[in-house]
Parts: sequence; C-alpha cells; structure tokens
Amino acid sequence: MATVPLITDAEAAANPAVKAVFDEIRASRGSDFVNDFWRGLAHDPPTLRRIWDDLKTVMGGLGPLDPLTRELIYMAVSVANGCAYCIHSHTAAARGKGMTAEQHAQFLAIVGMANQTNAMVTAMGIAPDAAFLVK
Amino acid sequence: MATVPLITDAEAAANPAVKAVFDEIRASRGSDFVNDFWRGLAHDPPTLRRIWDDLKTVMGGLGPLDPLTRELIYMAVSVANGCAYCIHSHTAAARGKGMTAEQHAQFLAIVGMANQTNAMVTAMGIAPDAAFLVK
Amino acid sequence: MATVPLITDAEAAANPAVKAVFDEIRASRGSDFVNDFWRGLAHDPPTLRRIWDDLKTVMGGLGPLDPLTRELIYMAVSVANGCAYCIHSHTAAARGKGMTAEQHAQFLAIVGMANQTNAMVTAMGIAPDAAFLVK
Amino acid sequence: MATVPLITDAEAAANPAVKAVFDEIRASRGSDFVNDFWRGLAHDPPTLRRIWDDLKTVMGGLGPLDPLTRELIYMAVSVANGCAYCIHSHTAAARGKGMTAEQHAQFLAIVGMANQTNAMVTAMGIAPDAAFLVK
Amino acid sequence: MATVPLITDAEAAANPAVKAVFDEIRASRGSDFVNDFWRGLAHDPPTLRRIWDDLKTVMGGLGPLDPLTRELIYMAVSVANGCAYCIHSHTAAARGKGMTAEQHAQFLAIVGMANQTNAMVTAMGIAPDAAFLVK
Amino acid sequence: MATVPLITDAEAAANPAVKAVFDEIRASRGSDFVNDFWRGLAHDPPTLRRIWDDLKTVMGGLGPLDPLTRELIYMAVSVANGCAYCIHSHTAAARGKGMTAEQHAQFLAIVGMANQTNAMVTAMGIAPDAAFLVK
Repeated sequence: MATVPLITDAEAAANPAVKAVFDEIRASRGSDFVNDFWRGLAHDPPTLRRIWDDLKTVMGGLGPLDPLTRELIYMAVSVANGCAYCIHSHTAAARGKGMTAEQHAQFLAIVGMANQTNAMVTAMGIAPDAAFLVK
Repeated sequence: MATVPLITDAEAAANPAVKAVFDEIRASRGSDFVNDFWRGLAHDPPTLRRIWDDLKTVMGGLGPLDPLTRELIYMAVSVANGCAYCIHSHTAAARGKGMTAEQHAQFLAIVGMANQTNAMVTAMGIAPDAAFLVK
Repeated sequence: MATVPLITDAEAAANPAVKAVFDEIRASRGSDFVNDFWRGLAHDPPTLRRIWDDLKTVMGGLGPLDPLTRELIYMAVSVANGCAYCIHSHTAAARGKGMTAEQHAQFLAIVGMANQTNAMVTAMGIAPDAAFLVK
Repeated sequence: MATVPLITDAEAAANPAVKAVFDEIRASRGSDFVNDFWRGLAHDPPTLRRIWDDLKTVMGGLGPLDPLTRELIYMAVSVANGCAYCIHSHTAAARGKGMTAEQHAQFLAIVGMANQTNAMVTAMGIAPDAAFLVK
Repeated sequence: MATVPLITDAEAAANPAVKAVFDEIRASRGSDFVNDFWRGLAHDPPTLRRIWDDLKTVMGGLGPLDPLTRELIYMAVSVANGCAYCIHSHTAAARGKGMTAEQHAQFLAIVGMANQTNAMVTAMGIAPDAAFLVK
Repeated sequence: MATVPLITDAEAAANPAVKAVFDEIRASRGSDFVNDFWRGLAHDPPTLRRIWDDLKTVMGGLGPLDPLTRELIYMAVSVANGCAYCIHSHTAAARGKGMTAEQHAQFLAIVGMANQTNAMVTAMGIAPDAAFLVK
C-alpha cells in the first residue's frame, strides 16, 4: 500500500544521488537498514537529499535539547497528527536513544492529557490570558 | 469570546468546591494568578476537580521525565492540534521551568520537521516497517 | 479578517439568487439575523444555494436523531477540527434547541475524554479488535 | 502492530491492580471481553486505573445526556481525529446502546456536513458573529 | 474492516435508487468499477444520491480550475486530514487525469513544506499581517 | 499575540545573517514588505535561512506545476490544518499569482467537499480499494 514506488537497493545502486543518501543513512545508524520512508522519497532524489540534510540539521548534532527529548517531541506531533508510520518509527528511535518503559508510559499519559485539555479549552472558546503573551 | 461563563474570584468564593481547587492552583504556583482555562471549567465543579487532579498526577511529581520535557511534549501536541490557548499557556509554563530561547528555537524546528515528514509519509501511503513493530 | 467579501443586505437585495437564500434563512429561524458564514458564501450564489439546501436536508426535518443530538454531533466535530466559528455558532444553536448548562458541561467532559483516549490508542498503535468489525 | 505490549489474561492475573480493572470492565459489560485498548494501557497500571475511573465518570451514570447521545459525541470526535480504533469501538458501543441503521446514516451525513462547513468557514477566515458570543 | 455494510452489485440491482447512481458512476468513468466509498454510502440511498450529485457539481464540468488542479487540491486536503482512503483514490484519479511522476513529486514537496510552515507559525502564535486581510 | 519576539527592521539591520534573508525576500517580491512569519523565524537565524532556502526550492523556479497550482495546494493544506496565518498569507499570494474570484470560489467548494468525503469514508472505516494501490 503506497502511492509511490519504494526504491530497492538494486535501484538505488544504479542512481548515485540516491545511493549517496542511503549510504549516509546507513553510516549514521551503524546498520544496513534503510526504512521505507526513505525508499519512498528516493523516487525524487533532490527531495530525498533535502529532507535528509534538513533532518540531520534539526535532529542531529549536539543542540540545546538532548536526543531523547527531541524524539519525544517528534512522537508527540506524530500522535496528534495520527501518523501511524511516524509514531512507530520514532517510538523505535526513542527506544534506541534510551527511552524506558516508564518514560514511554508517562509520555502516553501526557499526550492523552494534552489532547483532552486542548479540546476542552477549544470547546470553551477561551482566548489566551494576557499574562501568557510575549509583549 | 467564550461559550461558557468564566468564573470570577467573587463567584469562586461563594462555591467551596471551586474555591478549594482555585486555592490549590494558587498554592502549587506560589502566585495569585488563576488562568482562564480553570475559570471556564469552574462552571462545572466536579469536572474542574477531576481535570485538576489528573493534571497534577500526569504533570506533577517526580516521574521518569523531567518537568521541562513534559511541557515540551504538551506544547508539541498543542501545536499539532492548533490550540492557541494551550500553545501560549504551555510555552509560558516551559519558560517558567527553564526553557531557554535556544531550546525553544530547536523545539520549533523539530515541530516543523515532524509535521513535514508526517505529511510526506502519509501522502505516500507507506505502512510502518516490520522492524518498527513491537512483537 | 476574512479572505472573501461578506455580502451585505444591500448587496443581497441586488442579487435575486442570494436574496432568495437569505429570505429562506430568515424564515427558517423566524429572525432577521443572517450570520457571516452565509454572507461569506454569498459571494458564490450557486454554492450558497447548494450548501443551504444540503444543510436543510441533513440538519432539518424529523429524522431519526432529534435536533439537539444533531447539534451536539456538529459541535463535537467542530471542536475536534478546532473551528472557532462553528463551535460558537453551533453552541448557540444547541442552546436555541434546549441544551442546558448541565448538558453542555457533560458534552465538554465527553469531548475531552474522547480526545484523550483517541490520542492514547493512536500513540499505542493498536488496531481495532476483530469483535468491533462489521463482517 | 503496536508500540506497547498488550497484556494477556494470564499476565493480568499476576498483577492485582490490572486484574481489578479488568474485572470491573467485565462486570460493567456483563461479558468476558476486554478489548485491546485496555490491554495496551495495562502495561501502566496506575494510568489504566485512572482512565477507567474517568471514563466511568464521564460516560457512565445517569447524567443529563442519554447514553446513546454520549456515544454519538464520542464517535464524532473520533471521526474528526481519524482514530480508526475509536471509530470502530464506539460505533460498536453505540449499536449496543440501540443505535439503528437509520440513526447511523444520519450521523454519517451530519459528520460529513460539519467537516465541510468547518473547512469552508476556516478557508474564508470568518470570525464568530458577535451574536454567538457569551458575554 | 468497515462500520457499515458494502453494497454488492447484486444488492444494488435490487434497489433502483442505488442502481441509478451506480450506473451514473460507471457511465461517467467509462468503466465497470464502482469503488468501495460508494458501496458504503449506498446503504443510505438518499445520501448516496446527494453526495454523488454534489461531487459532480464541484469536481465535474468545465469550471475555472482544470480537472488535474482540482484533484491536487483534493489530495492536499486528504493528506492533511490523514485520510488514507481518499489519498489513494484521489492520487489514482489524478494519475488518470494526467499527473506525471514529476508533478506528484513536486506535490509531495509542497504538502510537506506547507505542513512544516503551518506548524511553525502556529507554534509562534503569530496573527495574520494586516496586509493579507480583505477589507 | 506571539510566543517569540518579532524582529524589527532595526534589529535585522544589526544581524547580517537576518538582513541577508530579509533582503532576498524583498528582492524576490519586488516589495519592501517582510511579513511577520519571517520576523518570528528571524529570532533563530539558521532556521530562518534554512526555511527560506527550502521554500524557494519547493515553491520557486519553473517546475512541473505552475505557480498558482502550487499556491492552491498550499492553501488546501493550510485550511485542513486550520492555520489562519497561512490561509491568509497564501490566499493573498494566490491572488498575486492571478487567482480569480471564480477560481477561489471553486477552490472553496472543493475544499469543503474533500473534507466532507474524507470524514464520511473515515467514519465508515473503509480501506482503500486494491485498484488504487501502486504495486
């Protein structure tokens, strides 16, 4: 089930632009696994390159937020958007960065609570308090 | 602009169930400020009590995720849901828990990137890789 | 704040197709008030007519669901979509059809709970139980 | 396909906190069936207990809205959030509370119409009429 | 997996109102294929008729936007709503109206970018510039 | 109302990285106007640069989709996400690229219809027909 072809390793080997990104993905993970998101994007090599580079910029490197916190933010967005693919891939990534079962359980509770209060305040039509605004 | 009345301090003073929650909110923050979300919920005292207690359970206490990380998860959900009230209130709360401008900037970049890749994988209709599933 | 012009009564009077729908709206409500949703749609008279007719079909008449239940369903969708206009207009409509403050309070609690459990099950990536499926 | 383990009856039997909630679920339904939402939550017993208690408070008891209307509101939120699990489980629950095929058909028509007009008014960027606001 | 029965050709043949719409669908496409969306709606013949007629009005005919552009708009909405069915059916329809692989790739890039900037501006809580408003 | 400071021209003049992007925005439009989205992003100059470059790549240049079609896709996503800022800015941009009132009216009708059918098929829980899938 997909609306685009998923590029195989054989096809990637025949396209240097795709092969270069797949190689970088493998090197960054120390694994031979290239997941299907990248295989789908690979039908459009310039976009594959752009998204991969942007993702490294945003999610890689040292940065002021630690790697697990970044994954939890990614997971939270993916849940609110109902994106099953991203929920599964970033939950796996969070585990790879040390997320414990207890942290996952608290994450689930927070995500549920945030959706609940989001809906309630939206239903009540309440505008942000002046105290919350940046001048 | 609201679909419910916002309970004033005078009205709260006349209703012990509401006053008790408002007092707890003030004590937990060490401030006299009660924001309008709670003033809206207060037209229904049992729900006010239930949501306040649940929120303390989920967001308060020690827990395996630190307080700032919890707020960042809350913010991420609120952005994906487009809830202006919650975005403003939890961004303010995150600042109160030490979020720096640099951390906020990285948060914004991650939230943008997550929404971008969520949409792309959804548009490509790709199912989660088997490697991401919990058996 | 709008991306289309809002048609005034003077402009409607000059366009028989628009005037006919505005007259029907007024007659159906027994009031002179035409809200801005219709004034926005009126810049495109065939769409104004089509949406008004469809809305009467779906929301009007006797039907198997009573008028207040229909409004509560409309409100629930509007909250989940974060549509401030529709939340306000259909909450007002529900009050016009007899919604009490107690019913509104229970509605708010249900909407919050539904959003919470929606998010939690989505985050857990659980497929519907076989028992829930229509063969 | 899940991001958490689904607790079996054998595992629940070994954990009194989980077993107690599963027993209450079975008693409340007069059936031995415990659906996978609860089996997923059960990996975190305090959250299992909290959500079950809150759900009974919100959806159970007498209340000002009848049980079928509550389910229709729950279904409407679930559709707007695109939560397949909740759509299937609460459609089944609504049938269990007497929803007829004709009521379901009208529900579907209303949900479609609400999403349509939500999108149109959002696209037109129209603010709520003053007449809809609670002073 | 469905919450309603999907009407077969044999069942449609026994119901003139359903058969008439199925015949129109087939004639409009020059194909015998009736997809499951219509088979689901067909359990409610008046809604089947209304949605089919509205869809012809909105998506058919000459109109100021060409047929492929209309499908791209439909696809964009479906992606943002996370509607897998509509993404697949309208991507197929767009291909049938001449969408090339290059156009699809640019579509995917735009949809990703739009979701990214939507989220970023929402997270920053910025109101529309006065210059963008229609007086 | 914003969660970040909006960078003024005086502040931009003092930061070469920001000034360079603002200059490019002005040059690309042949106008002195820099809208508040960019002024918000400018508190984080590397992200300002990255998003501006990506946006030029995705929305600028010749490409297989014409500039107006690209804006209509952007608008459709923004409506489905309920992003008021983006709806207003991209509707204005579409007008700048030649969108007529008749095209806008058809856009509104399509967006409404797509949201309606998205919700109906989601509520019916129907999986994509095999005929729609790319092998």
